[in-house]
Amino acid sequence: MIADINSAYKELLSKTKDLAVLSTAEGIIHWDMETMMPPKAITQRSEQLALLSRIHHKLGTDPEIGRLLDAIQKNVGYHALAPEEKRNIYLINKGYLEQTALPETLVSDIAMQGAVTVNLWKKAKAKKDFSIYKADLKKLLDLSKQAADNLMKVKQSKNRYDALIDNFEPNMPSATINKTFSQLLNGLKPLIGKIEGCQNKPKTLDFTMPVESQRRIAQLLTAKLGYDTQSTSAGGRVDETEHPFTSGYYDDVRITTHYYPNNFTSAIFSVLHESGHAIYEQNLPQQWMYQPIGSPCSYGIHESQSRFYENILGRSREFWRGFLTQIQEVTPVLAAVDLDTFLYAVNRVARSKIRIEADEVTYSLHIIIRFEIERDLFADKITVDELPQVWNQKYADYMDVEISNDSEGVMQDTHWASGLYGYFPSYALGNIYDGQIIDALTKSLPNWRSQIAEGQLEPVNQWLKVNIHSRGNLADPEDLIKQATGSPLDSKYFLNYLNEKYSALYGF
Amino acid sequence: MIADINSAYKELLSKTKDLAVLSTAEGIIHWDMETMMPPKAITQRSEQLALLSRIHHKLGTDPEIGRLLDAIQKNVGYHALAPEEKRNIYLINKGYLEQTALPETLVSDIAMQGAVTVNLWKKAKAKKDFSIYKADLKKLLDLSKQAADNLMKVKQSKNRYDALIDNFEPNMPSATINKTFSQLLNGLKPLIGKIEGCQNKPKTLDFTMPVESQRRIAQLLTAKLGYDTQSTSAGGRVDETEHPFTSGYYDDVRITTHYYPNNFTSAIFSVLHESGHAIYEQNLPQQWMYQPIGSPCSYGIHESQSRFYENILGRSREFWRGFLTQIQEVTPVLAAVDLDTFLYAVNRVARSKIRIEADEVTYSLHIIIRFEIERDLFADKITVDELPQVWNQKYADYMDVEISNDSEGVMQDTHWASGLYGYFPSYALGNIYDGQIIDALTKSLPNWRSQIAEGQLEPVNQWLKVNIHSRGNLADPEDLIKQATGSPLDSKYFLNYLNEKYSALYGF
Repeated sequence: MIADINSAYKELLSKTKDLAVLSTAEGIIHWDMETMMPPKAITQRSEQLALLSRIHHKLGTDPEIGRLLDAIQKNVGYHALAPEEKRNIYLINKGYLEQTALPETLVSDIAMQGAVTVNLWKKAKAKKDFSIYKADLKKLLDLSKQAADNLMKVKQSKNRYDALIDNFEPNMPSATINKTFSQLLNGLKPLIGKIEGCQNKPKTLDFTMPVESQRRIAQLLTAKLGYDTQSTSAGGRVDETEHPFTSGYYDDVRITTHYYPNNFTSAIFSVLHESGHAIYEQNLPQQWMYQPIGSPCSYGIHESQSRFYENILGRSREFWRGFLTQIQEVTPVLAAVDLDTFLYAVNRVARSKIRIEADEVTYSLHIIIRFEIERDLFADKITVDELPQVWNQKYADYMDVEISNDSEGVMQDTHWASGLYGYFPSYALGNIYDGQIIDALTKSLPNWRSQIAEGQLEPVNQWLKVNIHSRGNLADPEDLIKQATGSPLDSKYFLNYLNEKYSALYGF
Repeated sequence: MIADINSAYKELLSKTKDLAVLSTAEGIIHWDMETMMPPKAITQRSEQLALLSRIHHKLGTDPEIGRLLDAIQKNVGYHALAPEEKRNIYLINKGYLEQTALPETLVSDIAMQGAVTVNLWKKAKAKKDFSIYKADLKKLLDLSKQAADNLMKVKQSKNRYDALIDNFEPNMPSATINKTFSQLLNGLKPLIGKIEGCQNKPKTLDFTMPVESQRRIAQLLTAKLGYDTQSTSAGGRVDETEHPFTSGYYDDVRITTHYYPNNFTSAIFSVLHESGHAIYEQNLPQQWMYQPIGSPCSYGIHESQSRFYENILGRSREFWRGFLTQIQEVTPVLAAVDLDTFLYAVNRVARSKIRIEADEVTYSLHIIIRFEIERDLFADKITVDELPQVWNQKYADYMDVEISNDSEGVMQDTHWASGLYGYFPSYALGNIYDGQIIDALTKSLPNWRSQIAEGQLEPVNQWLKVNIHSRGNLADPEDLIKQATGSPLDSKYFLNYLNEKYSALYGF
C-alpha cells in the first residue's frame, strides 16, 4: 500500500514536470516573439502559441492525473507523507480542478477573444476612442465571467472576483484585500498631503545619455545585484523591448528593458525592477525544480521582490551613496549631479493619471481604483458602458486629476483588453508585503542599510533568498509572508517605511 | 461518401499541420539554444527538447491518423482526388508508417545515446583519441542498425543503408547514388589532375578585416540576394554562432554565420550558402504552408540551393564584377585587390583532409569516401574498430593525403557521433543537381550570366523559385530535378560546369 502511494506520487510528479517543462518552452517562444522574431512571423508564432497552449491544456487535464490524485488521497499512507509532499499534492489537485473546470472551448474562446480585443484596444488607444473596442471588451468580460462562475465552484470562492484574484494571489479574498487597502488608503492620504504641501520640489534629471552608456550602467547594476548575465556560466540575459519584462525559470532567466536617450532613469529603474523578478526565479529551490512547490508563490510576492530591488533598495540613499560615483565614471553626463539632487529627483512624488509612471507613494492609489472597479464589474454593479465615467470619477476623487480622454484614462493598461482580471491587486500587495519584509529584515539585520551604503548587498540578498525565494510555493502568500515576517497581512509597515523615508527626504 | 472523404482529408491535414507547427516551435527552441541561451540553461534546454520530441512522436503516431488514412485510401472517391491531394496522402502515409515502425523506446534510446556519443566525440576530437568514444559509437551504430531494420520493411528498401538515405533523399537508393558518384569520380580525377598541373597558383587573401565591416558586407549580401532581414516586414535574421546554420520555415527563417577577423571570406561564403537555404524556405508555396507538399523536397535539393548561391553564383566572375567594388566601399582592406586576384583566390582548388574547408571541385571526393564507408558499415563489411584505418586508406587513395591523426581524419565530422547516417550523400547530390539546374537555366535564360554581371539577380531567383522552391515537396528529388531540367539524374552537367569554369580560370 505504501509502495503504491510512492509510485503514484512519483508518476504524478513526472506528469507535473512535463507541464512545468512545457511552460518553460512556451516561455522561450514568447520571449523570442518579443525580442528576436522577424516581424513577418507573427501569424506563424500565434499558431505555435495556440498549439502549445492546446497541448498544455490536454496534458493538464489528463484524466490519469485525476486517478492518481484520487488513489493517493484515499490511500492510508497519505497522512504519513511529508508536509512538502502534501503541499505538492494540494497544488496539483488545485491546478487539475481549475483546468478541468474550464471546457476546452471556453479556454480557446477566451484566448481568441483576448487576441481580438487587445488588437482593437491598441487601435482604440491610438485613436483615443473607447467605442472602437467596447463591444469586444463586453464579449471578453462575459466569457471571463463564465470562467469565473466555473472556477468559483472548484475554488469554493465566495464570489466571481475572488475566484479570479485567486489565479494570481491564491487564497486572498477580496474582503481581505479591501480591508488592507482601506488601511493603506487612510495612511496614504495624509502623507501625500504633507508631501504636496512642501515648497521644495525636486529637479528633473533631463539629461541626454547615449544608449551605449545606459547599456553599460545596466550591466553594472545587474552585476551589483548578483543577477549574472556576463559570465560563461551565466543563467541570465538583458535584452531590449518596447515594454520591459522578465521571463524564465531557475537557470534560464531573461530580463528586458528599454533605453530612452532622453530619460535614462527609466532603464535604471526597469533594470532594477526586472532584476528583482529575475533573482527570485534564480533563487528558487533547486531541489524542487519542476515541482509545484519549486515555483514562485504568487504574483504579489513576485512583485514584492521586483519592488524591493527597484524602490526599497534602488531608490534609497544608501544604495546610491556608492553607486552614483560608479555610473559617473561611465558617462560624463552626470558629473555635476550630487547625491542629494539625484536622490530627490528619483523620489519625486505626485498624484498623476498614468499608473506605470507613478511613484512608490501614489502607486497604490492607482491599484485601489482598479480593484474597486474590477470588483464592481464582476458583481454586475457597473457595466462596460459605464467604465469611462466611473474611472474618471474615481481619478477625480482619489487623485484630484481630471482625465481628458480615455487613452490617459480607462484605456491606459493592457490588462482588461487581454482578459487579465484580478491581476491588479497583486501590484499593491507587493508594496504591502515589502513593508513587512523591511520590518522583519531590520529586526534580523539591524545594520542592513549601512551595509548597503558600504556596497555590501549580500546580507540582504541572502535574507530574501532564505526567507522568500527558496521557500518556493510551500505556502500561500499570506502564510508565507507571516512565516517570513511574523506578522499577519498589515499595511502599517509599508506606511511606516514611506513616512520615515519621505519625512526625512522632504523634511517634515 | 465523397463528403466523407473530404472531411477525413481535412482532419488529416489538420493533424499534419499540428506536427508542422510543432516542428517550427522546436526549431525556435533549437535556434535559441545555439544563439541566445544563457550557458547554464543547457540541462533545462535538453529537458524541453526531449519533451517536445516525445510529444511530437505521440502526435505523429496517433492511431487516428492511421484510421483516417485507411478510410481515405479505401474510399471510392480516392481516385478522383487532385494529384496534390494524393501526394499529401502519400507523404502523410509514409511519415506515419516510418514513425510507427520505430518503438518509442528505440527513438528515445537513440536520442539519449546520440547525446552521450556526441559529447564524448567532442572530447575525443579535442584529445585526438578515437578510443574515447569508440564503445559509445558502437552502441549508437547498433541502435541505428535496429532502426534501419525496422524502416527497411515499411519503406520496402533493399538494404539498411537505403532505408537510412531515404530519410534525407527520398527514393534514392544507394545503387543509383553509386552509379552517379562513379561517373562523377571518373570525371573529377582528370580535372583535378589538370588543375594541379598548373604552375600558376592563386594568392591567399590573408588580410585582417574588422568584424564590423564583415557584418556590413553580410547585410549587403543578403539584401543583394533578396533574403530580407532588415525591413520592418522582414522574415529573416542573421546571427552569430560557432558553426553557421539555417533554421525556420516560410515567414521566419534565420541564418547564422561566424566572423573570423583573419579569414573574412569564411563569413562571405557561409552567408551566401545559408542564404541559399533561407531563400528556398522563404519561397516555399504559401498556399500549401503546413502541408507535406508545402515542405522542402529533400536535403540534397536544399543543398543544391545553398551551393548554387555559394558556388555557382557566389564564386562566379559575373557576381563579383559588380559586387567587389561594393565591398571595397565598406572597407579599405580590399582596396588593392583586383577582380582576377580575388576570383582566383576564392576558387583555389586542392585535395585536402577537411571536408568543410574543401573547394567545389574536390568536395565531392570527401562525400564519396563517406558514402562508401557508410554503405559498408551498414552492410556489416567493416566494423567501428576498423573505421580509422579504412578512412585513412581511402584518403590516401582518393585524395593522396596522409592523415596524421583521427581528429583530422575520421573524427572531423559530427554526423556519425550524432546518429546521422545516410545524410552525407545529399551534399554531393546537391552538386549534381546544380549541374543539371545550370544546364536548364542556361537553356531557359541564355543571358543569365550577363544579367548577373549587371547586378540583376532577379531572373535567376525567379527561375529557381518557379522550378524548384515553389514546387515544395510535390515530387521526390529525382523526379523534381527531372521535371525542372528535363534530364534524369546525371553527373555530366556538373562536370561540364566545372570543366568550363576551371579551364577558363586556369587556362588549360
